[in-house]
Amino acid sequence: MKTEKIPSEQVITTTPFPASRKIYAEGQLHPIRVAMREIALGDTKLHGRFGETEPNVPVTVYDTSGPYTDPDVEIDVRKGLPRLRESWILERGDVDRLDLISSDYGRRRLADTGLDDLRFAYRSAPLRARAGMNVSQLHYAKKGIITPEMEYIAIRENQRIDLLKEQLNGQYEALGRQHAGQNFGANTPKGFITAEFVRQEVAAGRAVIPSNINHPESEPMIIGRNFLVKINANIGNSAVTSSIEEEVEKAVWACRWGADTIMDLSTGKNIHETREWIIRNSPVPIGTVPIYQALEKVNGKAEDLTWELFRDTLIEQAEQGVDYFTIHAGVLLRYIPLTAKRMTGIVSRGGSIMAKWCLAHHRENFLYTHFEEICEIMKAYDVAFSLGDGLRPGSIADANDAAQFAELETLGELTKIAWKHDVQTIIEGPGHVPMHLIKENMDKQLKHCAEAPFYTLGPLTTDIAPGYDHITSAIGAAMIGWFGTAMLCYVTPKEHLGLPNKKDVKDGVITYKIAAHAADLAKGHPGAQYRDNALSKARFEFRWEDQFNLALDPDTAREFHDETLPADGAKVAHFCSMCGPNFCSMKITQDVRDYAKENGLDGQEALERGMEAKSKEFAEKGSELYL
Amino acid sequence: MKTEKIPSEQVITTTPFPASRKIYAEGQLHPIRVAMREIALGDTKLHGRFGETEPNVPVTVYDTSGPYTDPDVEIDVRKGLPRLRESWILERGDVDRLDLISSDYGRRRLADTGLDDLRFAYRSAPLRARAGMNVSQLHYAKKGIITPEMEYIAIRENQRIDLLKEQLNGQYEALGRQHAGQNFGANTPKGFITAEFVRQEVAAGRAVIPSNINHPESEPMIIGRNFLVKINANIGNSAVTSSIEEEVEKAVWACRWGADTIMDLSTGKNIHETREWIIRNSPVPIGTVPIYQALEKVNGKAEDLTWELFRDTLIEQAEQGVDYFTIHAGVLLRYIPLTAKRMTGIVSRGGSIMAKWCLAHHRENFLYTHFEEICEIMKAYDVAFSLGDGLRPGSIADANDAAQFAELETLGELTKIAWKHDVQTIIEGPGHVPMHLIKENMDKQLKHCAEAPFYTLGPLTTDIAPGYDHITSAIGAAMIGWFGTAMLCYVTPKEHLGLPNKKDVKDGVITYKIAAHAADLAKGHPGAQYRDNALSKARFEFRWEDQFNLALDPDTAREFHDETLPADGAKVAHFCSMCGPNFCSMKITQDVRDYAKENGLDGQEALERGMEAKSKEFAEKGSELYL
Repeated sequence: MKTEKIPSEQVITTTPFPASRKIYAEGQLHPIRVAMREIALGDTKLHGRFGETEPNVPVTVYDTSGPYTDPDVEIDVRKGLPRLRESWILERGDVDRLDLISSDYGRRRLADTGLDDLRFAYRSAPLRARAGMNVSQLHYAKKGIITPEMEYIAIRENQRIDLLKEQLNGQYEALGRQHAGQNFGANTPKGFITAEFVRQEVAAGRAVIPSNINHPESEPMIIGRNFLVKINANIGNSAVTSSIEEEVEKAVWACRWGADTIMDLSTGKNIHETREWIIRNSPVPIGTVPIYQALEKVNGKAEDLTWELFRDTLIEQAEQGVDYFTIHAGVLLRYIPLTAKRMTGIVSRGGSIMAKWCLAHHRENFLYTHFEEICEIMKAYDVAFSLGDGLRPGSIADANDAAQFAELETLGELTKIAWKHDVQTIIEGPGHVPMHLIKENMDKQLKHCAEAPFYTLGPLTTDIAPGYDHITSAIGAAMIGWFGTAMLCYVTPKEHLGLPNKKDVKDGVITYKIAAHAADLAKGHPGAQYRDNALSKARFEFRWEDQFNLALDPDTAREFHDETLPADGAKVAHFCSMCGPNFCSMKITQDVRDYAKENGLDGQEALERGMEAKSKEFAEKGSELYL
Repeated sequence: MKTEKIPSEQVITTTPFPASRKIYAEGQLHPIRVAMREIALGDTKLHGRFGETEPNVPVTVYDTSGPYTDPDVEIDVRKGLPRLRESWILERGDVDRLDLISSDYGRRRLADTGLDDLRFAYRSAPLRARAGMNVSQLHYAKKGIITPEMEYIAIRENQRIDLLKEQLNGQYEALGRQHAGQNFGANTPKGFITAEFVRQEVAAGRAVIPSNINHPESEPMIIGRNFLVKINANIGNSAVTSSIEEEVEKAVWACRWGADTIMDLSTGKNIHETREWIIRNSPVPIGTVPIYQALEKVNGKAEDLTWELFRDTLIEQAEQGVDYFTIHAGVLLRYIPLTAKRMTGIVSRGGSIMAKWCLAHHRENFLYTHFEEICEIMKAYDVAFSLGDGLRPGSIADANDAAQFAELETLGELTKIAWKHDVQTIIEGPGHVPMHLIKENMDKQLKHCAEAPFYTLGPLTTDIAPGYDHITSAIGAAMIGWFGTAMLCYVTPKEHLGLPNKKDVKDGVITYKIAAHAADLAKGHPGAQYRDNALSKARFEFRWEDQFNLALDPDTAREFHDETLPADGAKVAHFCSMCGPNFCSMKITQDVRDYAKENGLDGQEALERGMEAKSKEFAEKGSELYL
């Protein structure tokens, strides 16, 4: 790494969002406080009634930014985030605090005094399930237990939509409107998500709650077809680039803009220490691909990998608090020849590592042969499987081929084995797929993997736009999210070209929030349309500030607007730079609506009578839209 | 306008694309030369055979950039582009060269000496159909005539895919592969597009060739469901912004990146002169919304608009060479009340102007009542209708509502009237639509408008991302393009916020080229996948330069790559910055493939034997991927 020093919080972004405040909704079953963001709105000027205004109900939005955007929380990355879940975990009485970390590698790093000034100092000893115990949320759910995590999620997913509707109390009916949606046979909740519904979905394996008992800092979130579509952001140094400091800020930055989980794909020489810093400061679940670190330990020689070494790496990372592991256990020796005639062969890093190991030894993938032993480790810490698609297509030409679907079937078998151990499991998907072949991926995944959550990379819908693959993939991501994919792994503009910088990470996250939200709307997820409605109302009423503040990226919206109309006056003007006062198209309906309202008219016929009088009124008032 | 002076070509972008040359394919039926871009590729290094290489066949791509990227053509915006189509038009013997332009307004501008130094000087007198003649491509097509325009289009749409396959002659089978596609009952050509197929589609009204006889500078292109999906870029000054010079460069810039048509939405005080400069220098068809200029002529008072004034504006613009007019003839008085309860009312500028006129006079839309007279003008110059959707939804909440579909049915009636006059017609569509309601728009349009080409704005699939609406809309655009929309009107990042600058125009165009191409792939349009395959092959073989050169935006691809790996050496390295040499996932398949090839192995069983030997070979060679 370039520089290696203890991070200072100055580089960490903690500014709250404009017009927003952190609010905490109380639990009913458990003494929990669920963090959300409330956006205050300006008043609506009542047309034709000078000075009269009408207040607008504030909007609550799903908030992944964690304590960083709460001015009341003191942020100190050297200490890490408050351990929100620690008491919940300990009170279940099924874990032990270890005297010493279990992995050999972890112990060696700890013993290396040369790493002291690089090490996270405030770490408490790791937890592990008591002998014979299973601490996975899936295990609790099957036993009928509604954990604090489950209630937290239920409250969080609802975004106080019930309260909002209550506050509206019919005052502006259109705000509450939502299209029915098409969910392709999903079990979409009716109107409101209950903690019991969360439990049922987890128990059925249709949803997972990544929640390693050694990552108590994370705010509970759920990945499942019947909940809001989530997005993952990959960070990581790889090659010789960023410092630990930058790594932590990268994670904080990604969460700020909406990342629901973070995958740490670092491959530098101090990834063990870097990971510790990230986990201790991450409000969202962290995923990794343990085979990357294992390969580092054998100096990049795939053929030197062993089960023992990999096993030690799993334990090392599980005790640090990694919430889910990508495991490429579906890359079977017999599938590798199926990739020989592909346009782009094997493009998954983990997939190619395992393929190389299989070729070098001409033996079956050890992740497959040792799968049940892996399950034993997973359930001792509640690490979830993300079964990797090592044979995913790397080009449009290779989409939906024999190698890809052969592996998917194997991932289905492994899912059932994981479930036998009550280990939470999600399935990774492609990749590069033209639009008309996307649905087949979703359908086959639902079939082979018994509705275990699908987690896809894009898919990219064309190969001809390097530099814009956040867009080529957002098209496929929105569609597959609609079809039932539970989490979308973002793609940045640098895909295929280089490593994302902060701007690329933000572009990738915002683009994927768009895809995920478009999917929620299309599925008809309860309450999903409320923010669209509130922003559209603000747009129609020329409440520019509210438009910016309700946007996924208020800063960019404001900046773009100000490029053309910088004056503050413009932000209250009843027109914008595209049209100008004569052209403004938003006002005409207001005239129609006002008339109908003022005269208590309603319905078609009445409105038509309104038209007539309106035409006279128009002439009398000098036929000006702007009075 | 800020500055008003004769443009100098210095500001006009004329640089050819990297590794690209302009080529011209000869016609068979007519003495025509069809412009295309050929991208030269580097050689493939044959793995394990030091120094041995294999050449790669150059790739031909559809080229909208016009003569600006041909170093052999001298560009002088004062003179305008070569008049490619002039002889074709004159040889048909059905037009007269007028002594004087026909519109009163046009004459007044011409007489105003104060405009002399602002005026395009090299303009020849306009053409008009001889009395009783109809000069529309639809008219010729119905008479069984294959015009030079039609043959040009057939050759252009094929992009020499036949030649490419011939040159390949089985050498690299995967390059020629293409997924079957799903076209929802379209009449997709089998393998190759003939001039006769073009004629048939135009005759059926399923495709239009915007080709005003007064715009001979334009290179023929076609808009139709059974051809490549096209994109439109809007330019225009509006408010007090750009100079004529900037306007021309904006158009050249948009065409450079892939705009198939340009809509000039200027609203400044010299739009007549600005438009002339744009048309004389535009290699693509130009569209306008004449009601905007008509409104300028009555100082923005919609109620003062008259049929006579509008008629004069149509003739003024038709004689300048505008290729298609957006006409909001479907905004009927009785539909206006249907918008009263909308979230965002009427958002179409033209729609709101006509709504205001209807309200002010309480009379039916004069564009509707005078529709047949408009047809008479259109066919005298071959201006195509773009029937405007003045009541399109401006928010997710208003998608697919009664007002929108009522207008669509009226546009269907008007289409049949236009066809009765052999006037070419396309239909404009929304707007803001959640994904699950997009297909209904396409289905209803095909039904009501008898397969007249659909031309949509986006649609945007969510309202919550101002500043990123090129992306929210690219998702909807790709989908509706797949479903059968013939042309996609781009949306820039500035949508809803301000006026696009050059960067925004480029971002919008590239984003929409992605959507259009993703749609071509999904429809299974012949040859569409070739460029994806060629780029993927380059990616797999680490031919970085070829990857950049085959990209929609080579400059950005190269720039992004160089941010992480600037060294020229890196561009030939067999790995990239994401993985590094140990991790590189592209090479493993090469090893598998090479072995099979070297030993003449093929098929599953043989490849498996290959695996075994391979594993030994691996060990012998020190198990290194990089020899």
